[in-house]
Order: sequence, then C-alpha cells, then structure tokens
Amino acid sequence: MTPSPAPRDAKRNFWPDDIRLVISISMQFEAGGQPLKGTDSPFPKVDFPAHVMSDPGANTWFAYGYREGIPRMLDLWDKHGVKVTSHMIGEAAMKHPALAREIVARGHEAAAHGPRWSSQYALSKDDERRFIAEGTRMVEEVTGKRPSGYNCNWMRRSPNTLSLLQEMGYLYHIDDLSRDEPFIELVNGKDFVVVPYTLRNNDILLVEGRYYSPDQFLSQIKREFDAMYEEAGFRRRMMSISAHDRISGSPQMVSAWDEFLTYVRRKPGIAFMRKDDIVRFALNRPDILREPETI
Amino acid sequence: MTPSPAPRDAKRNFWPDDIRLVISISMQFEAGGQPLKGTDSPFPKVDFPAHVMSDPGANTWFAYGYREGIPRMLDLWDKHGVKVTSHMIGEAAMKHPALAREIVARGHEAAAHGPRWSSQYALSKDDERRFIAEGTRMVEEVTGKRPSGYNCNWMRRSPNTLSLLQEMGYLYHIDDLSRDEPFIELVNGKDFVVVPYTLRNNDILLVEGRYYSPDQFLSQIKREFDAMYEEAGFRRRMMSISAHDRISGSPQMVSAWDEFLTYVRRKPGIAFMRKDDIVRFALNRPDILREPETI
Amino acid sequence: MTPSPAPRDAKRNFWPDDIRLVISISMQFEAGGQPLKGTDSPFPKVDFPAHVMSDPGANTWFAYGYREGIPRMLDLWDKHGVKVTSHMIGEAAMKHPALAREIVARGHEAAAHGPRWSSQYALSKDDERRFIAEGTRMVEEVTGKRPSGYNCNWMRRSPNTLSLLQEMGYLYHIDDLSRDEPFIELVNGKDFVVVPYTLRNNDILLVEGRYYSPDQFLSQIKREFDAMYEEAGFRRRMMSISAHDRISGSPQMVSAWDEFLTYVRRKPGIAFMRKDDIVRFALNRPDILREPETI
Amino acid sequence: MTPSPAPRDAKRNFWPDDIRLVISISMQFEAGGQPLKGTDSPFPKVDFPAHVMSDPGANTWFAYGYREGIPRMLDLWDKHGVKVTSHMIGEAAMKHPALAREIVARGHEAAAHGPRWSSQYALSKDDERRFIAEGTRMVEEVTGKRPSGYNCNWMRRSPNTLSLLQEMGYLYHIDDLSRDEPFIELVNGKDFVVVPYTLRNNDILLVEGRYYSPDQFLSQIKREFDAMYEEAGFRRRMMSISAHDRISGSPQMVSAWDEFLTYVRRKPGIAFMRKDDIVRFALNRPDILREPETI
Repeated sequence: MTPSPAPRDAKRNFWPDDIRLVISISMQFEAGGQPLKGTDSPFPKVDFPAHVMSDPGANTWFAYGYREGIPRMLDLWDKHGVKVTSHMIGEAAMKHPALAREIVARGHEAAAHGPRWSSQYALSKDDERRFIAEGTRMVEEVTGKRPSGYNCNWMRRSPNTLSLLQEMGYLYHIDDLSRDEPFIELVNGKDFVVVPYTLRNNDILLVEGRYYSPDQFLSQIKREFDAMYEEAGFRRRMMSISAHDRISGSPQMVSAWDEFLTYVRRKPGIAFMRKDDIVRFALNRPDILREPETI
Repeated sequence: MTPSPAPRDAKRNFWPDDIRLVISISMQFEAGGQPLKGTDSPFPKVDFPAHVMSDPGANTWFAYGYREGIPRMLDLWDKHGVKVTSHMIGEAAMKHPALAREIVARGHEAAAHGPRWSSQYALSKDDERRFIAEGTRMVEEVTGKRPSGYNCNWMRRSPNTLSLLQEMGYLYHIDDLSRDEPFIELVNGKDFVVVPYTLRNNDILLVEGRYYSPDQFLSQIKREFDAMYEEAGFRRRMMSISAHDRISGSPQMVSAWDEFLTYVRRKPGIAFMRKDDIVRFALNRPDILREPETI
Repeated sequence: MTPSPAPRDAKRNFWPDDIRLVISISMQFEAGGQPLKGTDSPFPKVDFPAHVMSDPGANTWFAYGYREGIPRMLDLWDKHGVKVTSHMIGEAAMKHPALAREIVARGHEAAAHGPRWSSQYALSKDDERRFIAEGTRMVEEVTGKRPSGYNCNWMRRSPNTLSLLQEMGYLYHIDDLSRDEPFIELVNGKDFVVVPYTLRNNDILLVEGRYYSPDQFLSQIKREFDAMYEEAGFRRRMMSISAHDRISGSPQMVSAWDEFLTYVRRKPGIAFMRKDDIVRFALNRPDILREPETI
Repeated sequence: MTPSPAPRDAKRNFWPDDIRLVISISMQFEAGGQPLKGTDSPFPKVDFPAHVMSDPGANTWFAYGYREGIPRMLDLWDKHGVKVTSHMIGEAAMKHPALAREIVARGHEAAAHGPRWSSQYALSKDDERRFIAEGTRMVEEVTGKRPSGYNCNWMRRSPNTLSLLQEMGYLYHIDDLSRDEPFIELVNGKDFVVVPYTLRNNDILLVEGRYYSPDQFLSQIKREFDAMYEEAGFRRRMMSISAHDRISGSPQMVSAWDEFLTYVRRKPGIAFMRKDDIVRFALNRPDILREPETI
C-alpha cells in the first residue's frame, strides 16, 4: 500500500481515446521582451555603468529567437503534426506580432507569461493584478485569443498569484514541478488545474549554450520518455518538455528535437497535447488527481 | 610494503556469507523539510526581499521528492530486492508521516539527518545536543524506530558532533569520505563506526538537474562498481551511492538506477546492505579497520 | 506563410558557383594581448593585491596560443585547404608580428579586434574612435593589410560602434548572433554587412579547458552542420565556428577540428569562405537579406 | 616557413633511444596539507564563523587522498611500470611520512610543492626564499631526497620565484603551460628547464567530483595522446597529465587511468619519464628548444 495518491490500475484508460502517454511541449516566446541589459544569457556578466543603456551584442543573441528560432521550430512541429503551448511575454508578442499570430495560425496555444521579462513574486497584490492583466491584454490584442494558462517568470509566483489568476478567468498554471501528471487544487474554493512543468527536461537549464550538448539533451529526454512510457501503463502520466526560442531554435537543437519526435512517434499511444486541451480534459474527468495541500 | 592499512588477503572473507562486495545505498528524505526560501536547487539564486516569505515555485521542485520521487524509488528497490538506508530530516518525516512509515514498512532503515534543513557545525555544544535530540525524537515518533545512524547537513559536523552522537546511543555516522570500507574510530573511548559516504557517486553533486545527464551518472557508477568489484577480491570494499528524493526520483534517473542495479546483479557475490547491518557486522568483526587518527 | 524573412526557394542558388553551404571559421589571435593579471582563463579567480602586477602562470596559458596553438591550426587549415578570418588584437599582433604575417601569408584574412583586450561599450564616442583607429593601425602596420571587418571584445559594442566603423571604411562586423546567414543593415544610411557569429559553435564558451570535452564539441558542431546542410537546400545558410588560439590550438582540439573538416568535406557543395569574401558577395547580391531593425 | 620555433625534422631522434613520445605524469601529494577550513573541494562554499576552526567533513574528502588514493595509484603505476613525479606539499609529507617514503621507494620522483597549501606570488622576496627553503627541507627530511623540481600552488609564481629556485639549486619548474615540450630559459644567466604542465589534461580542473565523468576524462586524454603521437613523428613532443591524490585516486578514476595506460602502451616508442630525467636529458641536448622571452 503506497502512499502515492496517483491511481494505479492497468485496466483503466487514463487519457481520452487510446492515448497511453501525453507529451506536452512548451515553446517560450520571450525574445525581444528581455530587458536591454543584464538579462541572463551565455554572455559573461558585467556590471554595466549607468550610462550604458543596452547590451546590443547580448540582445542579438535573444533576437535569434524570433528571427531564426521560432520559425524553425514551427516548421518542425508541422513536420511531426505536433501542437504546442507557446508562453508569450507580452512585449515580445507586441514587438513581433506577425510571428505571434503565425504561431496561433498554425494551431498552437497562446498562453500568458507576463507583460514583460520581470518577476512578480514581490509585487503588492494590486500591482500584481495590474501586471497579470497587462500581459493578458497584450497576448489577446496581438493574437486575438484570450489566454487561459499562465507561467510566471522563472516559475516564481507570489502568495496571491493563483488567487488572482483564478479571479481573472484563468483555468490553469504551470509553475509547479511536483508531479508528472496534471492535477487540481482548490483556488478561491474553485477547481484550478496545475499542468506541471519540469526543469530536468528544460533546455534553458541544461543547454543555454554552455556545458551541455544537444546529444546529451536528446539522450536525457529519450530516457525520460522510455521510463514515462513504461509507467504510463498503470498510471496517468504526462511528459513535459520545454523549448525556448533562442535555445531550442538553433539548427543543432532542432535536429535533436527532430530525432526525439521521430523516436517517440514509433510507439503506439503517444499524443502531443496543448495544455488547454489537457485542462479541458482534466476538468471533466472525475478521477483526476486532487492535491489538498497547496504549496 | 604498502603503507595502506587496508588488509589484503585473497584467502580471507571480508564480509559475511559469500559476499564479495557490499553496496550501500542512501536515500535522502529531505523534501518538505527545506527552508521556505533560498534553499539550494536548480533555480537561479535571487535575493528575496524580507517580505517575501516563501518561494513556492522552488518548493514544488522539492515536493516532487515526496510526491513522485520516493514512491517511485521504493518500487525500484522492491523490484531488485534492495534495502537502503533512508536519512530523514525530522520535519520532512513529520510532514509526510505515511511516507516515512511506508519506507520503514518496506524494510528500509530510518536514519537521522537533523530535525530540520540546517547546519550544526557552528552550534554550541548544548544547542547541538538539543538539535540532535530533536531530530532523533522526530524520526522515532513518526516511524517507531530509534535511529542508530547519523548524517549532518552537507556532512558538516562540529568538533562535538561525534561525542554527542555516541553519548546519545548512536552507533555510527556517515559524514566521512576518506575510505571505501567501514572502519572504527574511538569516540569517548568507545568504538564508533564510520560508514563512509562519497561525493563522486552522489546525485546531488553530479546531477541536481544541471549539466550532467543520467547517462553520465550511470556510466560513472558502473565504472566505479567494476573497479570496486575487482579490488574486492583482496580487500574489504564497500561502494556507497546516494539518491536524493527530488533528484534520483525522476523517471530518467530511476531508469538509470534500474539499469545499474540490473547490471551489478549479474555478478556473483553482490549484497545490498543497510548501514545498520553493516555496523552490526563491523562491531563484531575483529579484523575491521581501525583508524587511530580522528579528523 | 511564415514571417521569416529568409527566402525559401529550392530553385535558386544562394551562393556563387555550386556552393550549397558556406562555413566561416574565425581564428582569434588574442594571446599576448591579454592584461597581465585577472583575464578570464581556466585558472581560479583571485583578488590580486595591488603590488602583484602580473600572473605569469596564467599568462603562460595564453602564451600557448602563439607558441603552439596558431602554428598548429595553420597547418590544419593548410591540410584541408581552408581559409579563415583571423580576428587580431592589435597588441597581440604587435608582440608576435612574424606570426601575424604568417597568418596572412598563408592566405587568411586579418580582421580587427581592438588594440587591446578591453571593452569599448562604455567609451565616449571620441575615445571609441581613437580605440578603433589604434587597433586598425596596428593590424595594418604589422600585416600590411587594412582590415575591413571588426569584432568587439566579447561582442559588446556601444551605440556608436557601427557608425564609427562605417565612417572609418569598415565593411562589416560580426558582433551579431541573430541569424544563420549574412545580412545588411543601414548604417549612416549606407549598406553595412553583418556576418553573424555564434556562441553555440564557440570553443571559448564550450570548452576553455573545463567541463566540456573535445568529443562533445565535435559532436555538437557535426550536428549543427548536418542540420545546416539540410536547410541550405532551400535557404541561404552560413555556419559560423570559432577557434581561439589557446583553446582550439591544443592537440586534442585540433584533432577534433580535423575530424570535423574531414567529415564535412565528404559532402558536395561545401565552401570555407573568409568573411571579407562573404561580404564582397553580399554587397553585390540583390537578394541578400536586409534587416530594417537595428538592435 | 612557419614562425614556430619547434624543430621539424622527420629524420631526427628527439628523445633518447627509440623513444618517439614522452609521457610525463604528475601525482600531487597534497592531502593532509590543506588548510583546516575553506579549501577548494566539491563541498559548497560557506562563510565559516571565526569560532569554527575546522571543516572535518571536507577534510575527510582530502584524507581520501592519503588513505586510499595514493596507495591505489602506486599499485597502478607498478602494474604498468610507470614512474611519475610526485609534487609533495611539505606538511602533507610530514604528516604521512611513511607514504612519502613509499612513493620514493617505489621509484618515483619527489618534487617540491611548497611547505604548505598557500600561494607565494604575493610574498616579499625574503619571505618567499624562506617559504621555498622550508618546503625543500621538509621533502628532503622525510624522503631523504633533495628535490630538483618545483611546482607553485595553482602554478602561480611571483616575479622572484624562478630566480630564487635557481639560486637554491633547483634545476626546473613546471608552472608553465605554453609548450608541449621541455625548453630552457635563462634564469640568473644560467640554463633553467621548464617542463610544461597542462590544465587540459588535469584532473583537478576537469573532474574534482563534479560535472565531468571519468569517461570524459579518458576520452579527452586519449584524443590528446593520439594527436601528440602523430606530431611526435616530426617534432619533440611531451604529453603532461596530472593526478591529484584525492581525485584520480578513486576506483572510477584509477579505472580510467588503467584503460588509458593500457591503450598507449600498445603503441611503439612510448616512454613514461620522471621530470628529473627529462631535465637531465634537456640540459645535455644541444638542440633543445630555448625561449628567449620569459613570461
């Protein structure tokens, strides 16, 4: 008798249709939305004097994301029939609206990721409400779609974030790393879905241009997939992977992703689901996992 | 004539029965016991303003340890018939008592790891005595077992730690990296066992979500095993490996561990021993290594 | 309908002759030009007291670049018939003029890289003009060639850099990571070429003596090449790789480069072009990519 | 016409007998000589309060070097008939004199490495003279051999170091990374030999327990060897590799070293030479490389 609350039952279907394992890919659209200097990148940190307003060399590293990265990834997703969730920083979408619209036009989900590249965990409740509202409006204005999912800067939320999101009509967030399947928490007394994210299948932590080769990334997510696929025979399992515009969008990384997608598609019962589709399923499924404790 | 004090004698049996090499696995149960903000994790460090009391995003990374990690590892240990030593932070066990009891119920050892996630090397002797006593009490209260072994936060002890542990009835500690076999030191004039630990076979140092793939971890511990197995023919050898709840408990890492366990079990004479069993053996074995110098 | 401005047309030739993919190698000649203490290297950082004027141990690490590294790489380029662009720090070239001339005599391009190992992003416009002029003069004095291309220290330029370069007769710079092909920006109302650089195919970021093996470097750039070669069938593509004197010039790294060059030369349509040749082509090609936005 | 001063001549013998390539291994004996707290190790850095005098957990990591590491490596060198140079910190040798003597008794060279684990680059000339003399005396006292070679802490010397070493009768130092062969500099107007060291074949930089597997170390030095062996056909070449007591002395690392030694011994013309033997050869060879410039 294991204390794990995840149901085990080889007879049940954990997902709609004949799906055995769901893979949920996040594609961050952040490039262009970064602060003009001092943003984390492979460049060595320097203390810029106040009169230096921008770090153009580093900013071209980000620009790779909208100029080459996202277009290249969009072609890859099409090649494999994959739909992803794109977490859009408001200012990034506003600066390159054609690209934001293209993402949606090709069938991907537009989710919110704040109006700009800054954290919200230390804001007052009112400031945070305005912050979230501004990002929501920007994504909706550019793409014509109101986002139903949210991702904080570096996953760092305040004690008020979930409550505010629920008030504003959001259905889910991803800033939780505690599970390998979607689950429901009560927020303001209502069901609110958590679609967990990971750092271990995350290009920004592993690669970002240093110390970690695309081959290592590929072997790491293949191993994760194999293990998840096995577990998915008796438990509801969802594999989350993330792709940042300027990191996973390079030729070498898209090549690794291509190999991964080719690999997993050989197995029966694999589905790539947008997070809003996962949420719709979760909200209507009586046996979905519920976590009484909110962290 | 080598100065190494380790005995070499191909004729002798260094372990009970026909055991050639002992493998000692540590499973840290720490998740839930971490401070609410600022704990080491793959998240980038930030200086939280004082009014930010918690870092929920990072805390969900730890929660993975008790929600997914330990349950998954417990199944793996069962699959291979392995018994491990679980170093339990008191508060972690108190917050998830069913999981702590489950660990013990499945045959694993409950060892002490302090009442909370904090260091004891700078405490006064009285404060340290209370600190150790509190952690001891918590583990015993939750699991019903009084721990006989101790592990300090990041292995960092004070000049009083060993003396206090011996006074309180502990039989061994693991905060020593100097040997590849158990040995005895005199503490308060009595035999006290050291069951050495390693950093090189340690998931927290190698992996923790960055720069180091599960494949690298696997090849590293396989190479260590091969070398140890060879040496074990003429010397008492013990291989120590550690598995932290939120790190080794992921699908990709459990998959690597699974491959490792399958690999080593093909060799004759392998035994997985709990540290308290190793200690019982050491205390009754006249030829056990004794170190006159205490570091 | 992709927003990517890069033209796609399988019928067109994107490069002269029957070239399918251009590979552009940068060889930094920096060793000897580094500050006498405190320069980034694999040595642990220390805070030198003021009276310590030099760090000779670390400086011998740099000296490897001109003593062993560049001579070894020159032989490798000859072996494969490769011409590269050498970014020369003025003081490095002045201190080892025979080596600088040898680079040019063997058919490689001498490009400017500042008069000394220091950044220019925070200089006043006048100081920066003098800074660039001094480096230009040094390279010309030593090699007899006036450089037409520029690379800032760690790619970090000021808001005035491009304008100053254009005024002084430079035709291109490389401090842009946003594209996988050359493009034109308007600077002072004139066409100015950007020959993009990368950090992901860059030995200084990946290797520099730590954590990243030559094998990883090799597999990473091979994967990049394979992906680029594929894309080059329907888009103008240029692969940029860099080789720093003291890093890529070691036996183990030259061995990896040798394997890479042998690998790519098996494919039809590969050309290794100096950046000034790429620029000459770009300035005369009506369909070259133009970026209206300057970062 | 290459500016490289290294002679190229396929007809000549660059080493005595039929040696094609010399491999020079350094074995650091430092463990036990480290400061009681704050020394670099895989342990996370902490700011110890003043009343904490020692970090016993970390010190056991060092103790592994004399308890397991050096004895294990000595057996490996014997297995392959390899003689190495052991750089001994005076206090380390004084604390474990039997081990220091064992190193010498098995045919290895005792070289000096300072009296204690501290840097000398900022000392006054008189203090540095005393510092070197103290370390020299300690090694001689313990081993009965007066060292003829010197290695500074982290290779960092002062402007006076070479002059002082020459005055005191030292014949060579290794704190130079600029060449892949021994060479001579004039110090106090006399010939003084440099037997270059490397960071790229150095276990302390690459491994030290984190991010870099023994497999990577092995493949890296194998690649270096292959490239060096090739070059050694037309140039005098020496491959330098280093092994620190507590790092290369683990089972997994000794296993990697064992594989390396087995690999290279298959090639004809390989010799493992102690640095004092290399120096004796260099001082008597008219065509040895001479560097006019001292860094």
